[in-house]
Amino acid sequence: MSSAADSARAAAAVDERRLWLRHEEMGRIGATPKGGVNRQALSDEDAAARQLMVRWARELELSLATDDIGNLFLRLPGSDADAAPVMTGSHLDSQPTGGRFDGTYGVLAGLEVLQAIRNSGISRLHPIEVVAWVNEEGSRFLPGCMGSGVFTSAMRTEELRKVTDWEGVTCGEALDRLLASTPDLPRYAGPKPHAYIETHIEQGPVLEATGKKIGVVSGIQGARHYTVEVQGEEAHAGTTPLLSRRDAMRAAAAMVTQLNGEMSNAGEAVRFTVGRFDVEPGSPNTIPGRVLFSIDFRHPNLETMERLCRRIEPICQENADGCTVTVEQIDHVPPTVFDQTIVNLVERHATSLGYSKMRMPSGAGHDAMYLARLCPTGMIFVPCEHGISHNEAENASPEDLAAGARVLAACLVELAQG
Amino acid sequence: MSSAADSARAAAAVDERRLWLRHEEMGRIGATPKGGVNRQALSDEDAAARQLMVRWARELELSLATDDIGNLFLRLPGSDADAAPVMTGSHLDSQPTGGRFDGTYGVLAGLEVLQAIRNSGISRLHPIEVVAWVNEEGSRFLPGCMGSGVFTSAMRTEELRKVTDWEGVTCGEALDRLLASTPDLPRYAGPKPHAYIETHIEQGPVLEATGKKIGVVSGIQGARHYTVEVQGEEAHAGTTPLLSRRDAMRAAAAMVTQLNGEMSNAGEAVRFTVGRFDVEPGSPNTIPGRVLFSIDFRHPNLETMERLCRRIEPICQENADGCTVTVEQIDHVPPTVFDQTIVNLVERHATSLGYSKMRMPSGAGHDAMYLARLCPTGMIFVPCEHGISHNEAENASPEDLAAGARVLAACLVELAQG
Repeated sequence: MSSAADSARAAAAVDERRLWLRHEEMGRIGATPKGGVNRQALSDEDAAARQLMVRWARELELSLATDDIGNLFLRLPGSDADAAPVMTGSHLDSQPTGGRFDGTYGVLAGLEVLQAIRNSGISRLHPIEVVAWVNEEGSRFLPGCMGSGVFTSAMRTEELRKVTDWEGVTCGEALDRLLASTPDLPRYAGPKPHAYIETHIEQGPVLEATGKKIGVVSGIQGARHYTVEVQGEEAHAGTTPLLSRRDAMRAAAAMVTQLNGEMSNAGEAVRFTVGRFDVEPGSPNTIPGRVLFSIDFRHPNLETMERLCRRIEPICQENADGCTVTVEQIDHVPPTVFDQTIVNLVERHATSLGYSKMRMPSGAGHDAMYLARLCPTGMIFVPCEHGISHNEAENASPEDLAAGARVLAACLVELAQG
Repeated sequence: MSSAADSARAAAAVDERRLWLRHEEMGRIGATPKGGVNRQALSDEDAAARQLMVRWARELELSLATDDIGNLFLRLPGSDADAAPVMTGSHLDSQPTGGRFDGTYGVLAGLEVLQAIRNSGISRLHPIEVVAWVNEEGSRFLPGCMGSGVFTSAMRTEELRKVTDWEGVTCGEALDRLLASTPDLPRYAGPKPHAYIETHIEQGPVLEATGKKIGVVSGIQGARHYTVEVQGEEAHAGTTPLLSRRDAMRAAAAMVTQLNGEMSNAGEAVRFTVGRFDVEPGSPNTIPGRVLFSIDFRHPNLETMERLCRRIEPICQENADGCTVTVEQIDHVPPTVFDQTIVNLVERHATSLGYSKMRMPSGAGHDAMYLARLCPTGMIFVPCEHGISHNEAENASPEDLAAGARVLAACLVELAQG
């Protein structure tokens, strides 16, 4: 049988209802009252999600493995035991008030595809693997994409273990707890992947607005994260004249306002966000002595990104207002351009399966940006409701989720037979 | 013996070392590593401070009483059991990172004076009472000055019990816990006070800078508190264009910056502080959906205060930036002018005891501003190091603390014999 026919057969074997029910079951872990999930990286909820994946993998007789940073690998073997794996996956951790599809979809779509291929008895040379990468979100421990970062040697586990969350828990402690939740897994020992394709909800409004079913992702914009610490002096709100204050809140608000102003005028591709802003001591009657805030900056063009990011420190220092200001760059991920072979493959199968499609860059960062450094990589996007993501209201339709999984199935079969 | 001689005798009986040792013992309750205290209103630490006061009162055979809102009254009887009490006191609760003298000094100075008068065998017609007023700071439960507010009928206990702290605990629950820590106290049943004098550290730099020992306080500037709620929409930091965001952080920072700018240009008597600023969900990668911040505004002139405060809501609304903004006024305390008889009395005794002194308004709010509505009221200030207060580094000298207590002793004896 031809590879094209096998790809079509695998796509047809994807079960929309089964995929949806697994989303429902996974969405109960860390479920929030507003219909989203709070399943932060390396939390008890993250461990429960991992345990559920292990249960499903065992039901399907897939082999399992893990590594130092806690990535979870599910493997459907190929006929050549030594062949490099064709890989798919995403992440199971969420934002504190996150949605049920961001990341989870890419893992469950991969599992569904393994089941579809196995059930259809389609032969393949390469093994096919689904990976749940650890801590993609980076909302509890910075930086994000720790799992794929370590896997691709862009980060080192021993360094990451020292990172603390905002309550002082080290990543190492939390990671050991996660690993202990699924004991007896063998160590992952695969060769460099043959290729990697990640499915994900778009997390933006473009596919929905243009009525397209599949986003053929051409690359990922670059991202940088910073923390800014503003150290002033606590004093009594009633007695201290405005001119003699070292008010960390007043200074930090002015920094954020000027940064927002300049970034708003720097072109529509700029993404600039202050998401965390902690004020100490946080009493209405005390002039704040310290503020710590985060900056998330993204842009698809490396040169523009570097030019705009060079403005961050000077703007903060200009608004110091008597305080001491420390700007620390936490990470820098340059823009990613995906392998043309994979981008073309995704586009061809979307077409052969009859789906409307468009090429588009990804606004969000994904584990695929690290994998792209290691092997031919691409992504498949499906629409999400109103483009809303990183929000408990995040939603996607069972039909769209299945469409993305079908394109993935067709691509993985072709790659695994090649 | 003349009242003047008794006043001098009481002042002389004030024991500087005993007063200092009591500050040290009290300062261990809720002590912070940086030498301050965290003894927030109605906390376990606040209860422990109350228990220590009860122990000291029993050692001195003072009678004790409490009321619905948890104020603690220590009484040294006078010869006329029906005479209105001459009252002094302050508060034992602190800011989250507060100092050891703010409030505590006024309570311990009162206790020292009762002991000095009792030990000296000085006769008095009126009873003399020391009160520890509940929740002066207002950092955990707003508004502040709950104890003196209820005592003077400016607030109602049943309303205050419904207030919640930032973690959702009601004031009623916390108050019941505090009251249970000192069971078996009789209900306070005194008539309206004859007069009230509160001693306090200045919490500002003026006495130290001018080399004066005693501040003869002429009144208290007015204060208003607000909370501003900014409701936007959570979204993904990487995908959502800046123009289509409803970013609560961006809007709130702009509000705070414009407010700070206008208030800085409104004259040097203005005190304007944003002390609390809570951002949700507080993840670096998510556009904040909600910000809640506090405003503390103070001014000695009622008319100017009202004019400037009328600017707050419009400035917030002008900067709403697509978000929904709700400005709520939490309290309003107009400027207070103290009774001239009491102000003159304090000044006369500071002079007769040989202390350098100056008349001055209080920059901070105090329980005395509520008492001033009920009976002739005044305050005595002593210097504090570098004017620093609402800060763990807050400090005052044993000698200055004793000087304030001596002036208080002299005033209370004259009032109690009158």
